[in-house]
Amino acid sequence: MANATASKTYKVPQPLPLDSGQVLEGVDIAYETYGELSEDKSNAILICHALTGDQYVASTHPITGKPGWWERMVGPGLPIDTDRFHVICANVIGSCLGSTGPASEAADGQPWGMRFPVITIRDMVRGLVALLDGLEIGKLHAVVGGSMGGMQVLSLAANWPERAERVLAIATTARHSAQNIAFHEVGRQAIMADPNWQDGNYYGSNSAPDAGLAVARMAAHITYLSEEGLTEKFGRRLQDREVPSFGFDADFQVESYLRYQGSGFTRRFDANSYLYITRAMDYFDLAEEHGGMLANAFANHPARFCVISFDTDWLYPTAESRHVVHALNAAGAKVSFVELSAPYGHDSFLLDVPALDRVVKGFLA
Amino acid sequence: MANATASKTYKVPQPLPLDSGQVLEGVDIAYETYGELSEDKSNAILICHALTGDQYVASTHPITGKPGWWERMVGPGLPIDTDRFHVICANVIGSCLGSTGPASEAADGQPWGMRFPVITIRDMVRGLVALLDGLEIGKLHAVVGGSMGGMQVLSLAANWPERAERVLAIATTARHSAQNIAFHEVGRQAIMADPNWQDGNYYGSNSAPDAGLAVARMAAHITYLSEEGLTEKFGRRLQDREVPSFGFDADFQVESYLRYQGSGFTRRFDANSYLYITRAMDYFDLAEEHGGMLANAFANHPARFCVISFDTDWLYPTAESRHVVHALNAAGAKVSFVELSAPYGHDSFLLDVPALDRVVKGFLA
Repeated sequence: MANATASKTYKVPQPLPLDSGQVLEGVDIAYETYGELSEDKSNAILICHALTGDQYVASTHPITGKPGWWERMVGPGLPIDTDRFHVICANVIGSCLGSTGPASEAADGQPWGMRFPVITIRDMVRGLVALLDGLEIGKLHAVVGGSMGGMQVLSLAANWPERAERVLAIATTARHSAQNIAFHEVGRQAIMADPNWQDGNYYGSNSAPDAGLAVARMAAHITYLSEEGLTEKFGRRLQDREVPSFGFDADFQVESYLRYQGSGFTRRFDANSYLYITRAMDYFDLAEEHGGMLANAFANHPARFCVISFDTDWLYPTAESRHVVHALNAAGAKVSFVELSAPYGHDSFLLDVPALDRVVKGFLA
Repeated sequence: MANATASKTYKVPQPLPLDSGQVLEGVDIAYETYGELSEDKSNAILICHALTGDQYVASTHPITGKPGWWERMVGPGLPIDTDRFHVICANVIGSCLGSTGPASEAADGQPWGMRFPVITIRDMVRGLVALLDGLEIGKLHAVVGGSMGGMQVLSLAANWPERAERVLAIATTARHSAQNIAFHEVGRQAIMADPNWQDGNYYGSNSAPDAGLAVARMAAHITYLSEEGLTEKFGRRLQDREVPSFGFDADFQVESYLRYQGSGFTRRFDANSYLYITRAMDYFDLAEEHGGMLANAFANHPARFCVISFDTDWLYPTAESRHVVHALNAAGAKVSFVELSAPYGHDSFLLDVPALDRVVKGFLA
């Protein structure tokens, strides 16, 4: 993985307390902004990114050179309109695009590696709230995120209820299920089984656990797509051949696609970050943080909520969103909920779903 | 993996032609039998095993010491009643429990390794039919199998229509979907990424690609269980602790369970066999073998068919069974179809589902 430099870095002046009881000092938060902040600072929207996402929501990724991951949603005249809103997107702590994570230097000048403390979704949000404090933004117009971004959105709403007027959680869940944990565990075991992982001490060596990280990414990638979507996109079509090779090359297009996803990922992501962030997601259980009752997380909540799910998302299926909405209703919160129909599975929140654009635009208006 | 000796081995006298165009010579088929063969040889039932199954359907596994994999179904007075039927179960070629596979000796006295020819489901069935020929069993009372066993059942019915009076296909499909292929590809990549794999030349060395094989098994295992089943069995319960460790141990029961499944598997299964058998399954497309029309596979078929699916099986969902049944109906075949309700996902065919017992017993009567 190459090093990336974020365009802006906020140095959190105070130590960041973590759910584990540990404290993280000298935290950097790398972030991007789009659009002008209004004089009364009332037009800021915080976008929270997903597991392998980053702050480059609507600008070119410095390593891949690819467009931002939500350029179809964020920009002038788009649903999250940068002509109207000041959009902030920060790399979460634990990640590897400029914010403090396992690849960062610890106090002894060596990379943290696996000495980095295990963090939670709430710890990530602590970092984001510290950034908002630094930017002197008291109340966001909205906090928005899909997948793990949605977990941060719910965590921010539950733990800092005064910080956002609107809370938009897309394709997400208030808790990681046994199946969610299981898939992440496969990925972690794939990384840890790679001899190049070396207990996380591979920084500065010539070889990172790329093979293991690629397998982890491949397994996860399957969960991001629907069965129907895979069938429609690839079916049983062969790759660059008319008849099967009767060998172990990537005969099928879906194999070739997965290998490409796996190897491309290792160029832009750090394996230890993958371990830490998946762990944070697995630990996520918003009800458990609030006495076992999800409704308690949202008691007397002042914000307006919007929850969106996709009918083909089997990673965080609609039932999980409904669970959140029931809790919000039980807490008397203002919430609208919509299940959208889209063929792409979990990844629908990143793809061309015009109905999503309309709901997002309407909710932020 | 330890070596296993089957109680009986049939040496196929003639070379076995394969779909790849290659020919396999000196094939051994390891098999077990249960119950007496009647004088007119009319009471034989062939049971076909799944990906990681073997011939020990109702007898103790020689490596693990565990009971046979279908002891609840096969035995005196059980649905597949060995007081009435002569049950045959053979290890498929490509596997590692005594039948010829990549761990077997090639003509040069060295293990085949990856020089073993890529085989198909139909090739496996060629081996089984050779065994039936050797045993002089012309027509089976029934051929029965679940999962990959069901693929063999359908392949035998389509290609050797006179060899079985009854055809019972459980929790299976007539073709591997893009998602099915994708999961298998993750497993293969995990094995091949393990440096101990050494391009398949690990036999006789001190180390096999156990770490990669364990990851492959873990990923596959998730697909064998339903989301609801995982939630019911494990939920988010912690393993041997009250609070999370904030580390990378198996905090959650589901992690501990998966690790156990992965490491246990490497003791009884050969990584190269896993590559070859998953490849055979991925190549399986019964319609494609028959001019692109599944109904052609069953034209004027003399047998009675029974197709069984499970409502929580997301690996080979009911829609795949329905697809088979439509083809059988279109071909004018005698077929009954039932979708059973069971909470266990794909693994339901191996577990305590009384309705399955009743359907199997009734169909074989």
